[in-house]
Amino acid sequence: MSTTDARKFGLAVAQMGPVHLADSRQAVVKRLVAMLREAAARQAQFVVFPELALTTFFPRYWMTEQEAVERYFERAMPNADTQPLFDAARELGVGFYLGYAELTPDGRRFNTAVLVDRAAKVVGKYRKVHLPGHDDHKPDAPFQHLEKKFFEVGNLGFPVWNTQDVNVGMCICNDRRWPETWRAMSLQSAELIVLGYNTPSWNIHWNEPVHLRTFHHEIVLQASAYQNAVWVGAAAKCGSEDGFHMIGSSMIVAPSGEIVARASGEEDEVIAARIDLDLGRTFRQHVFNFAKHRSPEQYRLIVERTGAGAPLPLPPEATHG
Amino acid sequence: MSTTDARKFGLAVAQMGPVHLADSRQAVVKRLVAMLREAAARQAQFVVFPELALTTFFPRYWMTEQEAVERYFERAMPNADTQPLFDAARELGVGFYLGYAELTPDGRRFNTAVLVDRAAKVVGKYRKVHLPGHDDHKPDAPFQHLEKKFFEVGNLGFPVWNTQDVNVGMCICNDRRWPETWRAMSLQSAELIVLGYNTPSWNIHWNEPVHLRTFHHEIVLQASAYQNAVWVGAAAKCGSEDGFHMIGSSMIVAPSGEIVARASGEEDEVIAARIDLDLGRTFRQHVFNFAKHRSPEQYRLIVERTGAGAPLPLPPEATHG
Repeated sequence: MSTTDARKFGLAVAQMGPVHLADSRQAVVKRLVAMLREAAARQAQFVVFPELALTTFFPRYWMTEQEAVERYFERAMPNADTQPLFDAARELGVGFYLGYAELTPDGRRFNTAVLVDRAAKVVGKYRKVHLPGHDDHKPDAPFQHLEKKFFEVGNLGFPVWNTQDVNVGMCICNDRRWPETWRAMSLQSAELIVLGYNTPSWNIHWNEPVHLRTFHHEIVLQASAYQNAVWVGAAAKCGSEDGFHMIGSSMIVAPSGEIVARASGEEDEVIAARIDLDLGRTFRQHVFNFAKHRSPEQYRLIVERTGAGAPLPLPPEATHG
Repeated sequence: MSTTDARKFGLAVAQMGPVHLADSRQAVVKRLVAMLREAAARQAQFVVFPELALTTFFPRYWMTEQEAVERYFERAMPNADTQPLFDAARELGVGFYLGYAELTPDGRRFNTAVLVDRAAKVVGKYRKVHLPGHDDHKPDAPFQHLEKKFFEVGNLGFPVWNTQDVNVGMCICNDRRWPETWRAMSLQSAELIVLGYNTPSWNIHWNEPVHLRTFHHEIVLQASAYQNAVWVGAAAKCGSEDGFHMIGSSMIVAPSGEIVARASGEEDEVIAARIDLDLGRTFRQHVFNFAKHRSPEQYRLIVERTGAGAPLPLPPEATHG
C-alpha cells in the first residue's frame, strides 16, 4: 500500500474511574460494556481498556499468593463474568485490549493483556515484562506495590499481531517507561501500540514530587510514539480506589509525539480519534528509516548487560585528541 | 559515595547564534572564549558548545569532499585557531565539550566532539554514529543535508569518561533521537550526557510541520534524561545562517525530565545551572534500577535487526486465550 492511501482507523481509549474492593466483576464489566457501546457509536473500531481492569489494583495489599489468586485472578478469558463484554464486541464489530490477572492451568500468575478482534476472538496475549515494585512486606509504607510478588516476568516477548489490517503491539503500565519495550515492537513494524496502566500518584520508595508521576507518563508516551513512529493508545484506571489515588491522563498519541486526545477527569471516560496510520509510515521513511540509520553493532551493551556497570575500556582514539 | 552526599556541579550550555560563510574561525573562537568566561563567572565547571561549532553548518551545501575538507575540517584539536579557547579553559579551570569536523591523519572524515578537562587536556573523543540526511545531490531541495556524504559513521562506540569526578557521555545532534544512544551510555553509569546540535527548522524530505522540529528536540531530551536517569546539557547552533534557519532551545534537563534551564533566543547565550548529580542516583535506585527490572533476553531484536521487519513468529500461548 502506498503512502498516499488513506488508512484511517477509529481508535478509542476507555479510561476507568476507580474499582473499589466492594465492586463486583459483574458491575465492572457493565461499565466496560457501556464504554464499548459509546466508543462504537463514535465510530471506533478498537477500544483500549486498562491494566487489571476487572478488579481494584490489588498489588497494593499485602496478602498471600493464594488469597490473591482466589479474589483477583482469572482462570480463563473470556469467562462467565467477562462474556457480556465479548458478546457486545461481537455484536458491534469492535476489537479491544483488556488487562487482567492471569492464572494459567498449571498455576502460574502473570499480569496479562489480551487482544480481541471484532469477531470477539482472542487473537493475542501479552504478559507484562517490566514488573515494578517489590516482593517483600513493607509495613511502614502507606501501601504496597507487590507486582514482583504476585506475578512472574512475562514470557511471551513483545509480539506484534496483524489484526483489523493494523500491526498492533501491546504492553502494560511500567513497560512504557522502558525504551526497549517500544523498540522491540517497532522493529517488527508495529503501527499501533496499546497499553493499560494503574499508576499510583504517590511513590512509596522515595519522596518523589507528585506532579512528576503524570509528567513522566506523558513524556515517555510522547517520545516513544515519536521515536518508534507508532500511534499509542493508553488507558488508565484512576482516581481514588478505597482512598488510594492513581493518575488519569489516558491519551492517544500520534507518531509525531503530539497528544491528539486526552481524558479530562478521573472517571469512566471514552476518548476517541480517527487516526491516520500513514503518518507513522512517513516518519519511518525519513528520520526513522531504521535500515538506513541504525547501527546495531554499537548497541550491543543493551543486551549484554542487565544492570549499569563500569564504563567500557576506551578505544585508543577515544582517549586523546 | 552515599546518596546523602551533596554532589553539586556547575554546568553551563553555550548556545551559539549563526556562523555565516563569511565568518572566520578566529571570530568564532572569540565568541566561544567570551561565553566560556561568562560561564566561569557564573560558577560553571564545564561548558557545552555546539556540534560543528567552528564553521557554518556546511552539510547544507553541495560540494566535493575535497572542497569540504579544505574549508571546514580540522586536522588537529587543539590547533592554532582554537588554541585561545584551550588557553582560556586552562586559565579558568573549566572543562568543555566542543564539536568540529575531524580529518584524521589517514584522511578519514568524522563529525566529532572532544571532551576537554579543566587543565585543557583533551581526555575524550566521540564520533557521531547516527548521521542524518543523504549523500546525493538534491538540486530541487532548498538546501542539502549531506552528512552521509561528508562523514563516516562514528567508530568509537558510545564511551563514558570519568572527568571532574563526573561520569560523562557525549553524543551529537541526531544521535539524541535514538534511544539506543542513551542506553549504551546509561548502562556504563553515565551521570551527565552532553551534546551539540545544528537542527534545520525545515525538513527537506517531507512537509513536516515546522513546530514539530523544536517539539521533537524537547521530548527526546526530556524522556531520555528520565529513562536513563542522567542530566543532559544540549547546545544549539541556531538562528539564520546565510538565510538557512535552525532551531534554538538549548537546554539543561534533569533526570526527572524537567527542563531546568533553557535559552530564550537564537543568539549566543549562556545558560547555567547548579545540578545535583545525586538526583540521577535516586532514579537509578528505584524506578530505573536496571539490574532489578531489565530483561535483556527479551530485547535481542534491538541488536539482531537493523531495519524494521516482519513480526516474529508468535509463541503458541501468545496466539489464543
